[in-house]
Amino acid sequence: MKQIGIGLAGFGTVGMGVFRHLSRNRNLLSQRLGFELWVRRIAVLDPNKSRSVDTSAQPVTGNWEDLIVDPGVQIIVELMGGIEEPLRLITRAIEAGKTVVTGNKALLAKHGKELFDLATAKQVPIFFEAAVAGGIPIIKAVRESFIGNHIKSVHGIINGTTNYILTRMTEAGLDYAHALGEAQAQGYAESDPTLDVNGWDAAHKAIILASLAYGTWICPSKVFVEGIEKVTARDIGFAKMLGYRIKLLGIIKADDDGSRSIEVRVHPTLIPEKHVLASVNGVFNALCVNGDVVGETLFYGRGAGQDPTASAVIADLAEAAHALDSKRRDFGFMPHGLYGDCKPLDEILCQYYLRIPVDDKPGVLAQVAGVLGALNIGISSMIQPESDGQSAELILMLHDATHAQVREAIARITALPSVEGAPTLLRVEHFTP
Amino acid sequence: MKQIGIGLAGFGTVGMGVFRHLSRNRNLLSQRLGFELWVRRIAVLDPNKSRSVDTSAQPVTGNWEDLIVDPGVQIIVELMGGIEEPLRLITRAIEAGKTVVTGNKALLAKHGKELFDLATAKQVPIFFEAAVAGGIPIIKAVRESFIGNHIKSVHGIINGTTNYILTRMTEAGLDYAHALGEAQAQGYAESDPTLDVNGWDAAHKAIILASLAYGTWICPSKVFVEGIEKVTARDIGFAKMLGYRIKLLGIIKADDDGSRSIEVRVHPTLIPEKHVLASVNGVFNALCVNGDVVGETLFYGRGAGQDPTASAVIADLAEAAHALDSKRRDFGFMPHGLYGDCKPLDEILCQYYLRIPVDDKPGVLAQVAGVLGALNIGISSMIQPESDGQSAELILMLHDATHAQVREAIARITALPSVEGAPTLLRVEHFTP
Repeated sequence: MKQIGIGLAGFGTVGMGVFRHLSRNRNLLSQRLGFELWVRRIAVLDPNKSRSVDTSAQPVTGNWEDLIVDPGVQIIVELMGGIEEPLRLITRAIEAGKTVVTGNKALLAKHGKELFDLATAKQVPIFFEAAVAGGIPIIKAVRESFIGNHIKSVHGIINGTTNYILTRMTEAGLDYAHALGEAQAQGYAESDPTLDVNGWDAAHKAIILASLAYGTWICPSKVFVEGIEKVTARDIGFAKMLGYRIKLLGIIKADDDGSRSIEVRVHPTLIPEKHVLASVNGVFNALCVNGDVVGETLFYGRGAGQDPTASAVIADLAEAAHALDSKRRDFGFMPHGLYGDCKPLDEILCQYYLRIPVDDKPGVLAQVAGVLGALNIGISSMIQPESDGQSAELILMLHDATHAQVREAIARITALPSVEGAPTLLRVEHFTP
Repeated sequence: MKQIGIGLAGFGTVGMGVFRHLSRNRNLLSQRLGFELWVRRIAVLDPNKSRSVDTSAQPVTGNWEDLIVDPGVQIIVELMGGIEEPLRLITRAIEAGKTVVTGNKALLAKHGKELFDLATAKQVPIFFEAAVAGGIPIIKAVRESFIGNHIKSVHGIINGTTNYILTRMTEAGLDYAHALGEAQAQGYAESDPTLDVNGWDAAHKAIILASLAYGTWICPSKVFVEGIEKVTARDIGFAKMLGYRIKLLGIIKADDDGSRSIEVRVHPTLIPEKHVLASVNGVFNALCVNGDVVGETLFYGRGAGQDPTASAVIADLAEAAHALDSKRRDFGFMPHGLYGDCKPLDEILCQYYLRIPVDDKPGVLAQVAGVLGALNIGISSMIQPESDGQSAELILMLHDATHAQVREAIARITALPSVEGAPTLLRVEHFTP
């Protein structure tokens, strides 16, 4: 059976998982694929470190250049982490004509354009199923299965750490700090959880999805990103009373009008409790894709971890092997010039949840409602919980408004004498079936 | 731009949908694909019938042989319905070296082996994403994305008609006949709903999934199939009290032991109300795939209808165009000889729900429990609803037992003097995360 030579760069959790499962399911995979996927060399930071996996059949090197110069290595798998070093490795691999498989979302979000331009020029495919939502085959689905669809929107729970934290806050009433501590104790959050909780891990994935759906690499500075650090158990409770759950969503959308302008944003979002996404709990990920032909679809599974991510990398290796064999070049699945630019935040239209700390005095609601009315923002529902007699809270659900309108409303409301502090603003998404 | 010529056989709901969306999203599709998909000829039953779609640019013929002999037709799309006529068409197409796209599940379930043997001999690919679960890309996911996984199980809600009926019975408390009537009035059930409600439509899809996952065409006679005709609102109510929903599931499983024997079955099934599948309602389909590397995943969407099915056919056309261009032959994704045969029904192990009509007299429960104990079948929980004083019912949830054990238990229980009639038996599935 024909062998395809693999150079594995990075032998941490995911790299080791790929190696282990390639060996464990070797027969099954070879029979299905018609090729044998053979790891020829492994590049690691420290070749002398002792490891739990037997790599006696593979030379282990401390220098990834050894993978590039090995003529038997046809596919380079980059699972090193970081940005600058993988960028150098992948650039070298493409220049050397080697197929690339990577799961590096931060790298692609930042340097996707230059890497894919180079790959196109050199006719070398890059596969990256593992970069978004671990074992869920969302890259393949958007790029291949929905190729006949204008993608109206993708709403994704694409960060397991924050979904775990929000789930625990919702189910056990924990506050943010406690839920984060629990996630760290369980190994679901890193000791420095910044990139997860501030929304940027999800933003990298949203950028990659947007590039697939709309054929353009969005500049990270154009993406509106808000993390979950300020979400309170109190807001989760009010959202529940109103029939919503709060999830950190990565959202991409494109208008189906002439402009076809794009939205890419990540923020804590109120979604109707009856929607399937609302019941995606714990570390699970899920993506709701709405195509103009297929309608609403949902993909659910584990978005991180050794095994699910290894499953995605192995699928890419199989695809890469086929591509090498047939000279098929499917990385070109990207339309250009058919979609517009990223919509400025101020023009983005959505619905909102607003919690306003106010004095418990007559007339306050009239003042707040007056501000909203003057700015032409409709109120769809309202709660005023029983107060302690001195200060109170108003919780308002607002109809569609632009960010610019709502920004102005918040400035005016905050300035009202009966308002005790800055209101809490969260965004709301409804789904059209 | 290179044109790929398509011959469309069948111009009913789905055929017309494919034609319409190919034309509507033509620019997007061509730019993504790098080819233009062009319908060159359409074969219909009656070429003189007036249609709502403008086909003035395409010769319409009453004879599908015209598609085969047209040298510009490279792909034949079979959407005619029926079995014998499509079998002749596809056989002819393969012999003529034309790529085939079909959504015909009944045909593949019955003649899959001979068609794929012929296709392999002639090196002609057959694509069939539309044959299972409409717009949900489950064929691609199982065949390509999970290629590195031993598929432990697939649990699928793969018939929208029965899911609509069961949803209405659950939510509105309707009985079967009323819910079926409503489904027919809504256009979700045909005037002759036999193939849907008796489980055979789902069985065809389960056979196709099993062939992908386990590389073997299961003979339909080996599949255990039970429809929803005998499911009562009463059983749905008791299931609810016990924390379950009743869904018609297509189930495929393979043991991960040496035998790797396969189970393929379709039946109304109690599933835990907290599992994601339990909240898949109405005409929606969903499949829960458990792979030994990726873990539990779920795919959700519309399983039938003009647009979702057209989305799947168009994805296959894109795939077929790539395959034609690159001489890629990916239909070989099937392992052989790695899995065993279909397990006989009597050996299948699962859990059960049993409702037994009994006399309201002391000692009855002891007799029933005695029968089960003697056969070594454990009881996991029980309800005895308030009776009318004369007859009563026992609802038992049973631990794992083989079908042979349970068959014997039912025979003995039915023969008990205090038992008033044949017990109702339903199967229960739990999911390991």
